[in-house]
Amino acid sequence: MKAYQSMSKEELLALQSELEQAYEEMKGKGLQLDMSRGKPAADQLDLSMGMMNVWSPEDELKAANGMDCRNYGGVDGIAEAKKLMADMMGCQPENVIVCGNASLNLMYDVITRAELFGILGETPWSKLDQVKFLCPVPGYDRHFRITETMGIEMINIPMLEDGPDMDMVEKLVAEDDSVKGIWCVPRFSNPGGVVYSDEVVRRMAALKPAAKDFRIFWDNAYAVHDLYEEDQVPLLDIISECEKAGNPDMVYEFASTSKVTFPGAGISAFASSEANVAEFKKRMSVQTIGYDKINMLRHVAFLKDMDHVKAHMMKQAALMRPKFEAVDRVLEQELGGLGIGTWTKPRGGYFISFQAMNGCAKEIIAKCREAGVVMTGAGAAFPYGKDPDDSNIRIAPTYPTPEELAMAASLFVLCVKLVSVNKLLAE
Amino acid sequence: MKAYQSMSKEELLALQSELEQAYEEMKGKGLQLDMSRGKPAADQLDLSMGMMNVWSPEDELKAANGMDCRNYGGVDGIAEAKKLMADMMGCQPENVIVCGNASLNLMYDVITRAELFGILGETPWSKLDQVKFLCPVPGYDRHFRITETMGIEMINIPMLEDGPDMDMVEKLVAEDDSVKGIWCVPRFSNPGGVVYSDEVVRRMAALKPAAKDFRIFWDNAYAVHDLYEEDQVPLLDIISECEKAGNPDMVYEFASTSKVTFPGAGISAFASSEANVAEFKKRMSVQTIGYDKINMLRHVAFLKDMDHVKAHMMKQAALMRPKFEAVDRVLEQELGGLGIGTWTKPRGGYFISFQAMNGCAKEIIAKCREAGVVMTGAGAAFPYGKDPDDSNIRIAPTYPTPEELAMAASLFVLCVKLVSVNKLLAE
Repeated sequence: MKAYQSMSKEELLALQSELEQAYEEMKGKGLQLDMSRGKPAADQLDLSMGMMNVWSPEDELKAANGMDCRNYGGVDGIAEAKKLMADMMGCQPENVIVCGNASLNLMYDVITRAELFGILGETPWSKLDQVKFLCPVPGYDRHFRITETMGIEMINIPMLEDGPDMDMVEKLVAEDDSVKGIWCVPRFSNPGGVVYSDEVVRRMAALKPAAKDFRIFWDNAYAVHDLYEEDQVPLLDIISECEKAGNPDMVYEFASTSKVTFPGAGISAFASSEANVAEFKKRMSVQTIGYDKINMLRHVAFLKDMDHVKAHMMKQAALMRPKFEAVDRVLEQELGGLGIGTWTKPRGGYFISFQAMNGCAKEIIAKCREAGVVMTGAGAAFPYGKDPDDSNIRIAPTYPTPEELAMAASLFVLCVKLVSVNKLLAE
Repeated sequence: MKAYQSMSKEELLALQSELEQAYEEMKGKGLQLDMSRGKPAADQLDLSMGMMNVWSPEDELKAANGMDCRNYGGVDGIAEAKKLMADMMGCQPENVIVCGNASLNLMYDVITRAELFGILGETPWSKLDQVKFLCPVPGYDRHFRITETMGIEMINIPMLEDGPDMDMVEKLVAEDDSVKGIWCVPRFSNPGGVVYSDEVVRRMAALKPAAKDFRIFWDNAYAVHDLYEEDQVPLLDIISECEKAGNPDMVYEFASTSKVTFPGAGISAFASSEANVAEFKKRMSVQTIGYDKINMLRHVAFLKDMDHVKAHMMKQAALMRPKFEAVDRVLEQELGGLGIGTWTKPRGGYFISFQAMNGCAKEIIAKCREAGVVMTGAGAAFPYGKDPDDSNIRIAPTYPTPEELAMAASLFVLCVKLVSVNKLLAE
């Protein structure tokens, strides 16, 4: 393969006309595919259907401590669900509160409470002139949307191979007491698939923030979401690392079973220090009498323990892996050596992150959409929806069938080529 | 029976010594009973156990429109759940958003959003010097706790036989633009059991508030919770009444199945005008990808339609009615004609509201607790936990067994007598 950048203008023009013709043919196929969101496919969801009939009619729905899960009571969740979620996150059950169907909602709630009531006695954020969050990019669009909605200023932090640029994080956090938080997806980051190295976790836990109410928002969304059984990359427990570093209250951790059992019908968890958990519990008691304990008990009955969780996740991986590999194969075959794009080969999570030539992402996504394939919007992985390089594209390969995926990937590489050629010719 | 007020000092002293002896005997029994919260009893919950196995293994968990309820999507809930909740509330499905396990959480969310973002373009409440809520009393303690937590000033409004004192409500709402809301439980109010009359609902809908962002918080918690099949008192649909009165956006309605199926494991709903529903949906989309659609579908599969809901609720009533009647019988037998207490005879809901002589409620509840029966704390039904007359006691008869209830009621009337005698002797 010859890199596009080394082609002559004539070569590029010939290629352009060839690609345009191929693109018109693709458009004629009337595709209607969606690779925009990290959604499990139906066959993955089928793996959890046993949960719908996990009890026999004579089962009493009592927690291990005898509590009737069908009634009010137990605002912080049942003990066996705390254990399960703690094991998934790699922390201790006493750090955990088990909640409703969405960890995103917990992050929103925690920020809302910080805005209205303040954290552990500090000034409510809504009363401050300025509140800032550090946002490793590319990152998760829904995180950024929460902070944007709250009027919190977001600062881009480059993601490196082993986590966020910690030199920059350390400096900003230490210098500026209006920096109140950082968004992290520490294992199989969305969308880059990065697992934070031990060194990054330790540096994170040892931060010396100027603000007492600075918090690491540790969204451990893909804690057990490995694609491969072998060489699983471990993640240090941030809660105990913060403790060791003398910063016990500096982290809020979140997780859920959204991509273990059913998105939107799973259970979620908040995990943190004793003081943070006590504050969370106090605030949540105003908001609710308690979350769905029947669903907690159902999850425990079905998922049982970490051995079962891991086995269950490997069944999911067996369905997902071929899709990730198929996309990678098409990208490799069609774009390898052309110098017009690089992409990640994640070991887990839900995304492949593609870097196009600068200034090409929006146009590639528009071309895909025009031909019937919806990708995540350009810039979505950046605060305010603005990718400064207009280069990042998030590929979510899990939801389409393998056949659909092959077609979508073929269209995608064609659009990458065409837009790149156009770009080079315009320079 | 001779009214205590007409007794001589000697008669009262003799009675006091008799009652004190009886009380000491009661204490010796070592009771341990809880009549503090409106919780269904286990036999009521058993009525919904069919919901745990409502699907056969081959069921696909698809909504009527084909949506896979196991996956993300459909932020405002599935259409058939909207229909069910609308029928329960007596409004239209297009007014409804179906949400998570707790309507209390929705009220909290709506107020939080008003504080941080404002309602339909008005100033966020957190930026105002003063925000006030009208609180019909006695009322629901958890409502008052939300507004208290937000720093909202609460104003007591007397409850009359057919709803809040509307003369006072009309006046305060029209005069003061810092009055932003009123808490209402319009059917079988907590704890008084009042059903708002048509006239009260119409006057409520026709309010002329000084504040554009004044909202009626219409917590229709007991919409279908009748204790008797005959003579069920209907409630007007506040949403269409507000529309007719030219105030379409003035009401937020809430409901849930917490006391239809399982407390904490049911579904909830928000209902309002087109503009309010659109704003709710916009704000909730930042907070969550969506609520538990599997639980929505499960509820629809089990409860089916209003005929089934009503039949189901009559089964609950058959279990609850004897408890309400047993308490009423003891009160009537033991306190009738004594002039030391009055109480409600509700046609639905979860509570009996007892009015002791002024200045006696705290002491009665303390005496009950000392002898092993926990009642709702004195003053709980009032803003800031302060009953100005120290007279109201909320009795929650549903959770104990009939035998426990008989013992608890006997202790209660004994404490009422003893505290009343003490009070009269001290005067």
